Amino acid sequence: MTQTFDPESPVFTCHVGGKLSVRSSMPLIDRASLSLAYTPGVAQVSAAIAADESLARTYTWRSRLVAVVSDGTAVLGLGDIGPAAALPVMEGKAALFEQFAGVNAVPIVLATKDTDEIVDTVVRIAPSFGGINLEDISAPRCFEIERRLRELLPIPVFHDDQHGTAIVVLAALRNAARITGRQLSELRVVVSGAGAAGVACAKILLAAGIGDLAVADSRGIVHPGRDDLNAVKQELAAETNHAGLAGSLEDALVKADVFIGVSSGVVAEDAVAEMAPNAIVFALANPTPEIHPEVAHRHAAVVATGRSDFPNQINNVLAFPGVFAGAFDAGAREITEGMKLAAADAIGGVVADELSPDCVVPTPFDPRVTPAVRVAVAEQARRDGVARV
Amino acid sequence: MTQTFDPESPVFTCHVGGKLSVRSSMPLIDRASLSLAYTPGVAQVSAAIAADESLARTYTWRSRLVAVVSDGTAVLGLGDIGPAAALPVMEGKAALFEQFAGVNAVPIVLATKDTDEIVDTVVRIAPSFGGINLEDISAPRCFEIERRLRELLPIPVFHDDQHGTAIVVLAALRNAARITGRQLSELRVVVSGAGAAGVACAKILLAAGIGDLAVADSRGIVHPGRDDLNAVKQELAAETNHAGLAGSLEDALVKADVFIGVSSGVVAEDAVAEMAPNAIVFALANPTPEIHPEVAHRHAAVVATGRSDFPNQINNVLAFPGVFAGAFDAGAREITEGMKLAAADAIGGVVADELSPDCVVPTPFDPRVTPAVRVAVAEQARRDGVARV
Repeated sequence: MTQTFDPESPVFTCHVGGKLSVRSSMPLIDRASLSLAYTPGVAQVSAAIAADESLARTYTWRSRLVAVVSDGTAVLGLGDIGPAAALPVMEGKAALFEQFAGVNAVPIVLATKDTDEIVDTVVRIAPSFGGINLEDISAPRCFEIERRLRELLPIPVFHDDQHGTAIVVLAALRNAARITGRQLSELRVVVSGAGAAGVACAKILLAAGIGDLAVADSRGIVHPGRDDLNAVKQELAAETNHAGLAGSLEDALVKADVFIGVSSGVVAEDAVAEMAPNAIVFALANPTPEIHPEVAHRHAAVVATGRSDFPNQINNVLAFPGVFAGAFDAGAREITEGMKLAAADAIGGVVADELSPDCVVPTPFDPRVTPAVRVAVAEQARRDGVARV
Repeated sequence: MTQTFDPESPVFTCHVGGKLSVRSSMPLIDRASLSLAYTPGVAQVSAAIAADESLARTYTWRSRLVAVVSDGTAVLGLGDIGPAAALPVMEGKAALFEQFAGVNAVPIVLATKDTDEIVDTVVRIAPSFGGINLEDISAPRCFEIERRLRELLPIPVFHDDQHGTAIVVLAALRNAARITGRQLSELRVVVSGAGAAGVACAKILLAAGIGDLAVADSRGIVHPGRDDLNAVKQELAAETNHAGLAGSLEDALVKADVFIGVSSGVVAEDAVAEMAPNAIVFALANPTPEIHPEVAHRHAAVVATGRSDFPNQINNVLAFPGVFAGAFDAGAREITEGMKLAAADAIGGVVADELSPDCVVPTPFDPRVTPAVRVAVAEQARRDGVARV
């Protein structure tokens, strides 16, 4: 990707001054308003919360506020570019939270890549927020960071690169199976990539009832016989690949029903040609899909990408705004697996009556999506017993 | 102070949902805007900042964003009430930043009171912000925390309970001296209180040329002979009290020209009656001044309080919005002593042509104040060599 710094270009002119602002939701225009919103009035609110912390939910903004937390180690296709360079992306994410779901979000970019320090820092600032959206933190550290924060904090913690992607993939795959006349449990799935998105896709698909699923990383199929697997991949090896495959990604694709690419790799047309009839190809690498969608279409019944200029865009924005909005509506203490599955159902359900090979997921700007996800997630939070309201 | 939780009262109804919101400053309404503000366009901005971090000043919001950081240990008159209960105060502070100076601010309340942990945490989140406003952190930890953060961070760090108060006190005292026909260097000053505000007032007054100044804490006048002084008070003992006073606050007040109360103590009318002719009394304890202003007026030429229902309100809002706005305008790496003195001059200067015993400082809503402070602080930053622009 060529990166040119051209201050006159629309991308740079629209970024001048950044993309966010904080507004007071009540005017402080005179002594009377100041004495309500600030001293002396605010002391009554503080005293009430000191006596009963649950009142912070009602009388502060934190119950509707997300921290978008990143250490800048895995930003878009740019990799480890550090916190300052990650900030425009996190501002964009915060802007999406607001515009898609009315959820307030603040970017918190971190001057550390150390797992313990990241966990400690987020725990210490957590009383300021109602939820933590982890973003663009490289694997495998992202898994431990999320797990520990979920254990330590009584609020939703959600690594969007993992679960946002996984939710939308599941939504799309369910619809793709439907229009090709198959059950999820019949599908043999190959996931290319064992980073944040790959691991999360594998897990949600197994939870949704996929029968046979293999994951490949840059060294080939993940299986228990490999001696180069980190802890997360060892876990993957134990939970996936019940067919006992070994070898390359291409080996895995022979007779596979579904390819899900969440790597930056490339898949040859020959390999896709070897897949089962009515193949489903999600080539989600961005900006360059693992295989060009037009080429994939020669052999596949349904093709999706991460790009907005082809049909079936797998875009996290279909999930994360509604997931947090629904969790906040319910006062959820966490985002459960059930809430993720409910989000996927809701996203897929929006286009249930208009399914076609070129429409297995809604478009990012479909106004029906976030409200549907929001309601589904809040209801599931209550069913799962993690709701406060 | 009686604290009643009455959800129907105006204080509580106006706090429902909190007092802040985050807005996107550009609409994300279609594919075109999304591709500029988010992927793929934002990658160009991130890559440019990765190559030259100084571009973050132009292309992110951090150069105009303050973190309002508190551990909730010294909140208003309530004391150590913890981070959640402190949040409404910090939201109010952030709202004041926006409404008075258009400066964006986000409350960060911390789940730790440990000095090292607070410093580490703020350093790690600092790439998200352009300035750090420390708030309601108890003394003496507040001194070390501010000192270390100032050393570690290349952005303004400003403990408002110290310096905001000190700046406004100096502004008011300069005008009070003027209308009573004296020079600052002639005045004998007594500061009651050796916490955050007392220490900072003593330091700024010495820097401004006050000749003779003594500080008293709850055990009496601070002097080198005492064996109960912490490090900060030992430093105060060395720098103040050139007259070598010992004894009680009342002893110090005999023939003193100025009383500055920033404690929660009480001063008897008899003690004020012992002060020099044309005494100046700033009884700033809130909500109950050390001496009622009407009583003080029987013996003093100028009286100020922290309250909005009496003349001469010493209110930090006269200082901090313009201080940060001016520092941001100049891209200042720090808030120098000169910038604080310049802010005081600017505040006092606003009412230079309308001075009276009941008007030694502007009112908090005087629209001339923040612009004047802003310009003065930015100019001084450039003179002091700490400006980036």
